[in-house]
Amino acid sequence: MLLSAHNSSVQGTSQVNFQMNYCSNCGKRVTERIPEGDDRPRHVCEACATVHYQNPKIVAGCIPVWKDRLLLCRRAIEPRHGLWTLPAGFMENGESTEQAATRETREEACATVENIELYGVFSIPHINQVYMMFRADMSTGEYQPGPESLDVQLFEEHQILWDELAFPVVRLTLEHYFRDKKSDHFPVHVGNIHQHPARQG
Amino acid sequence: MLLSAHNSSVQGTSQVNFQMNYCSNCGKRVTERIPEGDDRPRHVCEACATVHYQNPKIVAGCIPVWKDRLLLCRRAIEPRHGLWTLPAGFMENGESTEQAATRETREEACATVENIELYGVFSIPHINQVYMMFRADMSTGEYQPGPESLDVQLFEEHQILWDELAFPVVRLTLEHYFRDKKSDHFPVHVGNIHQHPARQG
Repeated sequence: MLLSAHNSSVQGTSQVNFQMNYCSNCGKRVTERIPEGDDRPRHVCEACATVHYQNPKIVAGCIPVWKDRLLLCRRAIEPRHGLWTLPAGFMENGESTEQAATRETREEACATVENIELYGVFSIPHINQVYMMFRADMSTGEYQPGPESLDVQLFEEHQILWDELAFPVVRLTLEHYFRDKKSDHFPVHVGNIHQHPARQG
Repeated sequence: MLLSAHNSSVQGTSQVNFQMNYCSNCGKRVTERIPEGDDRPRHVCEACATVHYQNPKIVAGCIPVWKDRLLLCRRAIEPRHGLWTLPAGFMENGESTEQAATRETREEACATVENIELYGVFSIPHINQVYMMFRADMSTGEYQPGPESLDVQLFEEHQILWDELAFPVVRLTLEHYFRDKKSDHFPVHVGNIHQHPARQG
């Protein structure tokens, strides 16, 4: 479980365009420049010649389904405290995407899932994240709030609180899901979410 | 273009289980411990209270197709110098998965692609990478080796040098592709590649 800045930075800013001051290898000051043979600025340590790369992070999550209803979590952490989301969080080293999505569902909603199927791959370039969302059957009807959730509930489509969803990617995933559910055909959706011009983040 | 350790560490070890000695924020020594509310060891700076997370990286690439043949690159860099691969490399901050795959194809094979479609999502937990492979049509029949390639060639299925492929994920992607090509039906494949017991990496 992750109660720290790690998970609370999902769609936040704390891991975005991370500013590096010192070399994590030798402790000397880093500079920002384009390394030889490269085409974009990196944090470079001139003392030990280490180039420090920063790359997008994967956020893996589920649409947990139980008897025609799906499970949403009300966030107990910032950003978007109090708003509803699908269980999702940063993939960890050493796991697969499915394991990450399953773990996050267990941590945030205390729910176990099976028959997990990739459903959405959504890039969010301005915050350097790629969401990988899976459809999944809940193994039992049991769930309860994990430490990062105020509440966890099963919803039918007409019960969804569309104005109280935490993130655009959650809305997009749910819109695809309910549209595809009518035909019982669930292709993998690939898309991008761009910054809303009126606000940052 | 990336001639540095960044790209050459695809399926290599230089970014894997990265050892951090100093805090990149304040330059003090870090310790390795489980932070409060967390459940796994992280690099933690006791001086400035920063927790340094490490997460899997996305490697995005293409199967570039031109008139019933597909494009492979012969690697000019380690690891697997001299072996054949699909154009692929680390996704950069600020881009989408499709943009990353398109860029890598341009950099490694000097080829432009269109009609890009997600085809494979392959987790490689032991090296903390997730490959995202796309099928794509080459816009023209033009290609040539980029700085990271010794050679670039179009191959029909019977011409593939199966014993000279650089990485298991390339073999897996091509096996799926030629199987699906028989029915002209290309579902998105999700899978995991685990460490070969007989060797590291």
